[in-house]
Parts: sequence; C-alpha cells; structure tokens
Amino acid sequence: MPYFDAASAAPLHPVAREALLASLDEGWADPARLHREGRRARLLLDAAREAAAEAVGCRADELVFTPSGTHAVHSGISGVLAGRRRAGRRLVHSAVEHSCVLHAAEVHAADGGSVAAVGCDRGGRVAADGFAAALTPDTALAALQSANHEVGTEQPVAEVAEACAAAGVPLLVDAAQSLPWGPVAGPWSVLAGSAHKWGGPPGVGLLVVRKGTRFAPRGPVDEREAGRSPGFENIPAIVAAAASLRAVRAEAAAESGRLRGLVARIRERVAAVVPDVEVVGDPERRLPHLVTFSCLYVDGESLLYALDRAGFSVSSGSSCTSSTLTPSHVLKAMGVLSEGNVRVSLPPGTGADAVERFLEVLPGAVREVRAALGAPGAGAAAPAGGATGALVVDALGERCPVPVIELAKAVERVPVGATVTVRSDDEVAALDIPAWCWTQGQEYVGERPLEGERGAAYVVRRRV
Amino acid sequence: MPYFDAASAAPLHPVAREALLASLDEGWADPARLHREGRRARLLLDAAREAAAEAVGCRADELVFTPSGTHAVHSGISGVLAGRRRAGRRLVHSAVEHSCVLHAAEVHAADGGSVAAVGCDRGGRVAADGFAAALTPDTALAALQSANHEVGTEQPVAEVAEACAAAGVPLLVDAAQSLPWGPVAGPWSVLAGSAHKWGGPPGVGLLVVRKGTRFAPRGPVDEREAGRSPGFENIPAIVAAAASLRAVRAEAAAESGRLRGLVARIRERVAAVVPDVEVVGDPERRLPHLVTFSCLYVDGESLLYALDRAGFSVSSGSSCTSSTLTPSHVLKAMGVLSEGNVRVSLPPGTGADAVERFLEVLPGAVREVRAALGAPGAGAAAPAGGATGALVVDALGERCPVPVIELAKAVERVPVGATVTVRSDDEVAALDIPAWCWTQGQEYVGERPLEGERGAAYVVRRRV
Repeated sequence: MPYFDAASAAPLHPVAREALLASLDEGWADPARLHREGRRARLLLDAAREAAAEAVGCRADELVFTPSGTHAVHSGISGVLAGRRRAGRRLVHSAVEHSCVLHAAEVHAADGGSVAAVGCDRGGRVAADGFAAALTPDTALAALQSANHEVGTEQPVAEVAEACAAAGVPLLVDAAQSLPWGPVAGPWSVLAGSAHKWGGPPGVGLLVVRKGTRFAPRGPVDEREAGRSPGFENIPAIVAAAASLRAVRAEAAAESGRLRGLVARIRERVAAVVPDVEVVGDPERRLPHLVTFSCLYVDGESLLYALDRAGFSVSSGSSCTSSTLTPSHVLKAMGVLSEGNVRVSLPPGTGADAVERFLEVLPGAVREVRAALGAPGAGAAAPAGGATGALVVDALGERCPVPVIELAKAVERVPVGATVTVRSDDEVAALDIPAWCWTQGQEYVGERPLEGERGAAYVVRRRV
Repeated sequence: MPYFDAASAAPLHPVAREALLASLDEGWADPARLHREGRRARLLLDAAREAAAEAVGCRADELVFTPSGTHAVHSGISGVLAGRRRAGRRLVHSAVEHSCVLHAAEVHAADGGSVAAVGCDRGGRVAADGFAAALTPDTALAALQSANHEVGTEQPVAEVAEACAAAGVPLLVDAAQSLPWGPVAGPWSVLAGSAHKWGGPPGVGLLVVRKGTRFAPRGPVDEREAGRSPGFENIPAIVAAAASLRAVRAEAAAESGRLRGLVARIRERVAAVVPDVEVVGDPERRLPHLVTFSCLYVDGESLLYALDRAGFSVSSGSSCTSSTLTPSHVLKAMGVLSEGNVRVSLPPGTGADAVERFLEVLPGAVREVRAALGAPGAGAAAPAGGATGALVVDALGERCPVPVIELAKAVERVPVGATVTVRSDDEVAALDIPAWCWTQGQEYVGERPLEGERGAAYVVRRRV
C-alpha cells in the first residue's frame, strides 16, 4: 500500500528504530543527575548533539533539541525578536512559509510588532532581490524556508542569507523539508528542523542559533538545553533522530537522484493523462521527492478518499480537505488553482512500480469525482444552444468546486467575446476562478462585492 | 544495581515499552491527514486520550497531551492567567512548588503581574487555611502541587480546591509526583502531569483544563491538541504513556502499601544508624515511595558519588550538587538542613533486600565523606581547652559544609552559655547554621551583614 505523504511524516527509519530501542534502555534517566544512569543519559545526549550538529554544519553548542520543529520555529523567532528588540520590531518572512512561522508572526503582530510578507512567483519561488528589498533598518529578523512543504519549490536561501548578512539582519531558515537531503548553504543565523520529516521519531525538533546572534529566550525556561528549550529531554527519541539523520544523509545523493526521476515522471504524465490539471511548483529548483498538482472540477477530499480506496495515501492543500474552508495560504500566494489539489511526497525507497500504478489509477479517480459532481466533459452533455450575450450564474451557498464547475458550463453556452458572471460567497472562488481562467485561456475581467450580501460577482470573458 | 531516583525518572514500564513498539508501526503518521495512516494515528491518539482521561478523572475533551510536564505547567499557568486577566493579575502558589511553576511565576512577575508564595511548615506541608487566606479578590490563579517532589509531603489539595472554588479562583494542581498513585481529589480546575514519572516514555505531559475554566492559550498555537499544545503529536509516546498510567494504577494499591513499608524502614533506620542526620518531610502525609534526609558535615556531591560507587543511585537537593551554589528552594522554604541532602525515591518493584543493603552501606559512606572533610566526631579530636568566652570563626571563602563543620568544632571549644560567631559568604550558611542549631539543640541568636564585605556573621549560643 504506497504511502505518498512523506512531507507530513515518514515511517521510522530502521536505523532510528534500532537506536530508539537501545536508548530506551540506556537513556531514560535524567541527564542532569550525577548518578551513573544520569551520566549515561548525558553521554548519549552529548553524542546525539555532536552527530546532529555535524549533519547541520554547526557547532554542537549552537544546537539544542526541542519537542518539535514547530517549537524550534516558535522559539527561534521569539528569541531573536526579543534579543534584537533594540534593533527594531519588524519581522520579514515569505508568504509561503509553514503555518508555524505565520502563527509566530501573528503573535508578534498582536504584541505590537510589525510583519511584512514577501510574495512569490507562480512557481512558489521568492525572488532574492525582492526579499532583500524588504530588509529595512528596523528589521529584527527575516525568515525564509529552505524549500516549500506544499509544492516543493526550493528558495534562494544562500543568496538571501548573504543579503541578510550584508544588511545586519539575522536570517532564520525553516529547513524542515530539506534537511534530510543536505545542509543549508549560506551565512544563515538560525535554523529549525524536525526529525519526523527524516525518518526520526516524532517529538524531536532542532534549533540552531549561530554564535554571535542576539538571542533572548521568551517565556519560562529552565537549565535544560542551554536555557532554550525547557522540560525533561526526550533522549531516546533524540538519539534516534540523530542516528536517522546520519543514515538518510548517507543515502541522500543516490536516493535524491532516483526520486527526482520518479517525480519528473509524475509531473510529465499527470499533465498528459489528466485533463484540466495544473502541475504547480517550480519545475527545476525543487525538492527531489515532492510534486503537487491541482485538478479542476474536483473537490480535494473526495479525490483523496478515491485515491485512498485505490491504496494511495496523499495529502491536499484544498480548502475542502481542511476544517477552515480556506485554501492553503501557499497556493493562494502563488495564485494557482487550489481545488482538487494533491501533494505527492515520496518516502525514500519508493519504487517505480508504485509510481506507475499511481499514474494508472489517478485518471479514473479524477473522472469518478468529476462525474459525481456533474463536471464539464464528465459525460454530462452541455446544454445545447443557450445565451448569446452575457450570462449570470448564481452559485451562492455552493462550495468549491461547484462555482467553478458552473462557470465552466456557462462559458460553453456563450459565444466568444461574451461574459459570464459568477455570484459566489465561497472564499476560494476568489482564487480558483482567476486560476481557472489562467489554465483555460479565458479572460478574467475582475470581481466586485455583492450589494447587501456576503460574497462577490466574478466576471469572465470567453476567449476560446 | 539499585536505582533509587524514581522521582526524577523511572525506567520504561514493560507495558509502555510494548505499546511504544506497536504504535511506532501504527501511529507514526499525521493524525490530521485523511488517509488510512492518518486515520489510524488519529484512532490511537483518541484512545490514548480516553484512557488518560479515565485515569485522571476528567472528560477526554478536557485533556491535551503536551511535550512534557513542564510544558503542561507553563501552558496551564499562562493560559489561565491570560484567560482571567479581567479578574486580576495575582498568582498564588506554594513556596515548595516544582521549579517549573516558579519559572512561570517569574515570567508573570516580569510581565507586571503579582505573585504571592505561601509558606509551609518544617515538614514541607502548606496549611490549607493559610493558602485560602492568600486568595484575594484579584487572584487570577492558584497553584498547589499534590505532593512535593523533593521531600514527598502530600499537600491538602482537596481542601485547598474547595477553598479556591468558594473564592471563585481556579486551582492548578501539579500532580506530577502523585498521578501514578491515584487521581487528585477535590474541585480543581487545571491539572498537569508527566509520563516519565509513571514509567511512560519522556516526551509526554498532560494538561487538563476543566470545562468552565477561562483559558486563553498564550504564544503561537496551531490546530493540534485543541489549540492548546502546538506541534506534531508524539503519538507512539502518547500511547505508551497512557498504557503505562493504566498499568501502574492497576498495581498502585498493592505497590504503594509495600513501598510505604520500605520507606518507613528507611526513615526509622537512617535516624538510628547515621549520627547527626535530619530526616525531613511530613512523617505521615507523604508519597509512598519517597524519603529525604540531610546529613550534617557532608557535602551532597561527595555523598552522592560515594553512594554511586557503592551501587546506589540517589539524588540531592544540596547546593553543592547543583551548578548554582544555591540550595533547593524546597529545603529553604522548610527551613531544614540542606547540606548532605539525599533523596531516595523507590521505583515500583524495589525489593526489601536492596533497601537493607542501602542501609548497610549508608553509614560508611557518610563516615567516609565526613572523615575527608575533617568533620567533628569523624576521628579528628576536638582541640583540648580553648576559648572560654566568645569565639569568632572566619569561614569566608569556604563553601558548604565547611562553615557548619567549623561552627561545630568551635562550639565544642566554648563553655555552655558562650557564643560562637561564624563569618561566612556562603549563601547556604543562612539556611544550614540555623538548621544545625535546631538539630543540635543549640541556640541560634541571629545574623548581621558583614561591614564592607559580602556575607554575614551568624551568632550561635552554646546550650548543651
């Protein structure tokens, strides 16, 4: 049963499992204690720190273990913002950071700080010069991911780190997705990672703060982990995480080349075998194991379940697969289609046969969901004849992907040059209707708020 | 090799080990995902929450898992203080709380809040009426441990919880030490616990917030754990923690009776076989497995190592076993001797034979340390004759236990009714010199600051 959601969590690496079992016996005691069990735990913790620091490319005394990558990011951001409060209170981050960065930024803004989000291109990539231009003299901290977790696009971290160094602004790199593949280049100041993304157990993040970076931990701390991560250390998991990082790094060169081939195959074939699909993310500068695409006229949750029934586990950034009814902020920032979104992230060891089977299964799964929704081209004949001038479609109360399906059907009923107006109160329509136009070669005229009602009227002109 | 430091951390319970191994295979995926691996992880998480809630005596939707007991306490305190900011900004806690409570209180005070610490008796027990008297109308939160982690004294939590309920103040109970033995009685509002204290793995705490308690999580959060504990859930460890709690509870009644007998034996025999020892903590209202005593004229670190060489792992609240040179705040609040402090905490299954061997080894270990320090009664003959009136001992620059050793020697050289003044800049002298007088039946006259120097002059009158 192929599991294609490694970017969420990967099964435990065999090396991690072995290390965890051994250190459950040897490393359960309190490393702050002087007795032999405590000293043994301390030795294991020190050795794990050395190994992790070597893999990251930092000094051991610059690295602390946290309970998760999220904790590492939260502590890293609040610690630098507090340490550099005199420099200013501005936080600059990319618009496509992981939500844990955005949550920390929200807390900073609520506390009176200022926050600037730097946009990206349609491939999800941030421009290094655009990012550098946002570094004002009162910027306390900049944050940029090494690679995007939803679409796989690599960011120009080394270039941005140079620009930050030149501007005297520390750069925090969320390296959660890229750390299994290699160290992060450039003169960054703070780095965060998460063990369960590299085959380590859950419960371990790492936070690196380079010597010379002003850092003042926020909230209550204790004497553990250099005063930067309170609470009893999870040594068995830390030992397993360090062992796993070393193991995946040893396999990284060969495995990344192999997975890159499989991902290229998916990118090419999905576009060929699924009609009305948009493969998203930068085509070249990308993580080796991750590919994302969005399917028109499909709701993400139904597609996920259809693929699940066919034996494939993937994830989605569609609004209709989350509890919030808002689409992924990453897809939104990119301006790409969010409906029917699928993220495939291959764990190490994924075989070509599993990928081929996925490519066989996918078109049918999409077809099945489209048919259930009465999507255009799914066997439901477009009504003959119809309007000749402008057409108004009322999709109020309908949720993604219905407004786009109604739009597509209406466009078939008007002549080239005529407009279709969709009235919708679905938040996602603002993203998906322009994205539909972009993928279909139609013209997006614009939107206006509805009078006396929640929602907007979206106007599209038929071009083809 | 007997390990007698269960109050710091206990080895993994066999049931926890089995549950951990099983759920490493079944529960590694992201429980927020819709695919089968995610759904399986979610089921395990839900079942663990049900089991933990049953053991605690709360509803499952009142309980979230945190990365540690420390995180649970920090989040519990900051969440209630923020949620009840309108009621006031006063935090009341006992003076003998775990340091994680004190750290959270320090952060609150630094943020402009007010903090009141309620004292305890010489046995470490807080008076319920004294605690209730501290509950002013502007008190936002009260915090009281169920039992003390250093001396084992049980606190009157049920009584205090009633008083808090009557005053409309939520009570947070740090139940880390007592949770393996049973649920916490009384109408408390918030409760924190730590799995590695009950044979669960490290990396799991629990935070219970009763329905109706105003609670506003502080800092960045996400959608995990009801918005009260951010970061990827550590499901294998959570499952193991819940299984272990259930297992130790099943054994609790029998095991607590058995360990209580062993602890009573240690309390009685230590006082009999070690000269100049003070057994501390409430003699009756105490945890079943924990006993603490302090030995005059001994430094804690040397005694720990001597016991370690003899095969016994214990811990100590002495200043000379920590990096801070300050004694345990618990012993300080109790006003008892801090030098030569030893905490024995027996893990479940400890045999009577191991305890008897400890009692055989202990007197020799204490004697050995005293001899090395030239302590009184350790073979070094007291100088004959000597001063007849007042005597001044200069112990400036000397660290615990030397000032007390010098005091004891000097007192032997003056007649009954005469005074000895000890000049010392060791912070612990302020605690240990009065405590020495108390244990030796001598009179503590008082102290005065030294002129032009750091430290104080401590005056003692010979009575016996």
